[in-house]
Amino acid sequence: MNADRISTLSVRQRIQAIYDPEVFLQAGNQIVALLSQHFRDVQDGRGNVLNWNDPKANIAIAKDFLRMGTQHPASIRENEMNLDDLSDRVKDLVQTVLTRGQNLHHPRYLGHQVPASIPLAGLFDAIGSITNQVMAIYEMGPWATSVEQAFIETLGQEIGFEMDQFAGLVTHGGSLANLTALLTARNVALSDVWEEGLSEARKAPVLLVHADAHYSVSRAAGILGLGTRQILRVPLDERRRMDPDELDRMLTDCKATGRPVISVVAAACATPIGAFDILPDIAGICRKHDVWMHVDAAHGGAACLSEKYGHLVEGLHLADSVVLDGHKMMFAPALNAFVFYRNREHRFEAFRQDAPYLFDPSAPGLSEHDSGMKTIECTKRAAVLGLWATWSLFGRQLFSDLVDVTFDLGRTLFEKLNAAPEFESIHEPQCNIVVFRYLPNEIRDLSATKQGEFQLALRREVMQSGEFYLVPCKLDGEGALRVTLINPLTTPDHLDELLETLRRFGRRLLGSGFSFRDDTGTD
Amino acid sequence: MNADRISTLSVRQRIQAIYDPEVFLQAGNQIVALLSQHFRDVQDGRGNVLNWNDPKANIAIAKDFLRMGTQHPASIRENEMNLDDLSDRVKDLVQTVLTRGQNLHHPRYLGHQVPASIPLAGLFDAIGSITNQVMAIYEMGPWATSVEQAFIETLGQEIGFEMDQFAGLVTHGGSLANLTALLTARNVALSDVWEEGLSEARKAPVLLVHADAHYSVSRAAGILGLGTRQILRVPLDERRRMDPDELDRMLTDCKATGRPVISVVAAACATPIGAFDILPDIAGICRKHDVWMHVDAAHGGAACLSEKYGHLVEGLHLADSVVLDGHKMMFAPALNAFVFYRNREHRFEAFRQDAPYLFDPSAPGLSEHDSGMKTIECTKRAAVLGLWATWSLFGRQLFSDLVDVTFDLGRTLFEKLNAAPEFESIHEPQCNIVVFRYLPNEIRDLSATKQGEFQLALRREVMQSGEFYLVPCKLDGEGALRVTLINPLTTPDHLDELLETLRRFGRRLLGSGFSFRDDTGTD
Repeated sequence: MNADRISTLSVRQRIQAIYDPEVFLQAGNQIVALLSQHFRDVQDGRGNVLNWNDPKANIAIAKDFLRMGTQHPASIRENEMNLDDLSDRVKDLVQTVLTRGQNLHHPRYLGHQVPASIPLAGLFDAIGSITNQVMAIYEMGPWATSVEQAFIETLGQEIGFEMDQFAGLVTHGGSLANLTALLTARNVALSDVWEEGLSEARKAPVLLVHADAHYSVSRAAGILGLGTRQILRVPLDERRRMDPDELDRMLTDCKATGRPVISVVAAACATPIGAFDILPDIAGICRKHDVWMHVDAAHGGAACLSEKYGHLVEGLHLADSVVLDGHKMMFAPALNAFVFYRNREHRFEAFRQDAPYLFDPSAPGLSEHDSGMKTIECTKRAAVLGLWATWSLFGRQLFSDLVDVTFDLGRTLFEKLNAAPEFESIHEPQCNIVVFRYLPNEIRDLSATKQGEFQLALRREVMQSGEFYLVPCKLDGEGALRVTLINPLTTPDHLDELLETLRRFGRRLLGSGFSFRDDTGTD
Repeated sequence: MNADRISTLSVRQRIQAIYDPEVFLQAGNQIVALLSQHFRDVQDGRGNVLNWNDPKANIAIAKDFLRMGTQHPASIRENEMNLDDLSDRVKDLVQTVLTRGQNLHHPRYLGHQVPASIPLAGLFDAIGSITNQVMAIYEMGPWATSVEQAFIETLGQEIGFEMDQFAGLVTHGGSLANLTALLTARNVALSDVWEEGLSEARKAPVLLVHADAHYSVSRAAGILGLGTRQILRVPLDERRRMDPDELDRMLTDCKATGRPVISVVAAACATPIGAFDILPDIAGICRKHDVWMHVDAAHGGAACLSEKYGHLVEGLHLADSVVLDGHKMMFAPALNAFVFYRNREHRFEAFRQDAPYLFDPSAPGLSEHDSGMKTIECTKRAAVLGLWATWSLFGRQLFSDLVDVTFDLGRTLFEKLNAAPEFESIHEPQCNIVVFRYLPNEIRDLSATKQGEFQLALRREVMQSGEFYLVPCKLDGEGALRVTLINPLTTPDHLDELLETLRRFGRRLLGSGFSFRDDTGTD
């Protein structure tokens, strides 16, 4: 017992040393300084966008660090941390993280729909992480919960929903947000499905979705037990927007054949080329057929904050559910996806149960403010602190500016592509997503498949060089180059450099005798 | 056009000022200093655990800040931020967050299963937030992905899985982790369910779950289209562990009646009183019946790192899938829940599709390292940076220590409760979750319902006072007090104070003429 106590004391001393506020202060200042210097370098365009390393090599290094920690832990004498030793090791860890990561704040980062986030937003999110503010029930994160509710109310009104009529929630990303909204739509459409399940003698219900809908929509059908083959893809018009007449016809067919419709899924915008559906038309047809209208506005929803681009999401408030990612065009660090329900009566439809140890009958009114009643997550991070603080500092204008600057850049790139004969701009961009191909004379006469293959190979060369970060995509089955202009520090000059870099790498690739896998010959 | 350009330039200048590394440096240092001082106060036990405020009041204040941001944004002159103005406003925001939040690092925080997280882990997680490292595909977060994979390999081997035989993933919390594992189990059990859905002519499949399973398990049945009524609850033994004989009998019944079994769901430990199932026995029965064995070890899985408590999770590696939350007993900030599959062949079973713009045929081997193939999330935060860095600094020993210190405290509280005549300890704790009742003479003869009602009222009084944070629960329908000893800075002395505080508030509540809602009289 006595021996036990002594060993317990020494374990406690070790822990105390690690939790010491002085240790935190030193490491915190050190990390802030390293990050500030990193931003300075990266934002000025020094170094690579991405220092490419093979996954296996990276994983081995990450494991070496873990092994080192166990074999030679940072030294603690009595109950005091050796601060010099700690400082050296923190520096080593931070520099490894920074040099092996992706540099989204580099102006030549033009990649996926993940932004060069507002650095101050990251700092405020960090307060949540460091003090571990969470939700599920209000008590556990009263301020985190309140900030989230305040932001939902503010943003919902910007979309055009009526105060006190709508409701919302925050979840970890657009995929989960689409899943949650479609779960609600499923439960509303099929009244006892939550309890009874979908098995036994049900006519298979369907989802009618934008033909270019994000893969999370199809996944939702798989997860929810509907089945991915029960998805009906609504054909697109010439600008890859959902064709309202086709939707009308398909909904009429569903009624005629007695297939229950869970939801129509429109896009604002769809991922491939950033096409925005004409929402008022879709809404009119959904109302005519009395079906749930969901809009995946993960990327484009924030356009509602812009005077210049707000027209793209006109009618968003007519949807029954809307998804909008704060971590895309609101430039917050990942992840904070908003789900809005036009009719607040639906806010508890996704999950129809309670957890007795969470929801306290001694204060039943409070469960309105328990986020866990509305989200798939039980414990949830304080995901909106950064957005809330940034808006509280700089107001609505900043978010409007960010949309304008980056959407404008999309237009600028389009104009540059049209002026450059070796490039083919595939569409007129509606926002900051631009898809195109580099087609020098040498490959102009090859098959579309070979041309596409060349784009993907070219993209990989450029990506691995670290000079630019852009992404591959397939449009109607053929490869293309795709950029999202989602770093507001990118300028038109960087876009000129992009085209020049693609030319340079393209010529090099052709000169080295690029060999095509496709052997179908020329068109 | 010229006017356009000028306005574009000035918008760019505003944005540049907000992204300025100097601005970040100042705000970062300021926030680190405020947090360090906050830790000093809170860890020393100064002030309240929770400064209780009504949700409506908090939301109104959070909205006031947002309005202020729009009406009076922090001032930017030319392209320079006014740093003094910014500093005042940052301070105001940070202090509001800190004074209105929950103080998990206060030694009198004994609440839900969310820890007083390791402050340094929060700092490293912040690097991910601030530089916005994400995953889905390897390229977007090469280091974040590698760290995650390295940690999965290390932790999986600690559980006892065989290297190169198992696989894992990280997701945003235990609820999502349970959902993902059970989705995999569903897809494995019913081979075409992903594509075809559950409708039409299927015999309703069932889940056999620990009777005290977390509500996310029942929710998973609702989400996955199985239906919450298709859950069969396996009765418990006298220590609230799943009864293996009952499980055996029920599985035999399922076979006899031809009901497909998706999974058995065991607990290590179950939430109500922290009961650990006897896993080798459950595993034997699952193998005998050839059914999937899932273990929700969100809370207790980390016991595998402790020499003293490792026996509680003996046999965990026999499960087909395991959930273990890094943000519970590994003391990382929320959220990072691990899912392990014993057989790595199952790692892509949850989702059977691809996203053409994500997964690049020009390097197909790399998709093994694309997290989005395995998780519900598409874009995902760098959720394991903090855990990885902490382990890299202090090694396995720290995590073992944290389990030992807090599980020991559970035992200590149990002993104190047994020594205190006005308290009733309901169970012998296996870990750091302890459920009990305060039963002074005045209420000893009342009905169990009234006694339970009194516990919840007492709990609410203490919680709102800020003196301690503990939580309510219901056990077999009757209210009780519940603590999780999940702050390693809590000492046995604090537990004495807890009992004294409960006595003081209890007497006050009785003295003020507490009125019971239950009117069923005495037993």
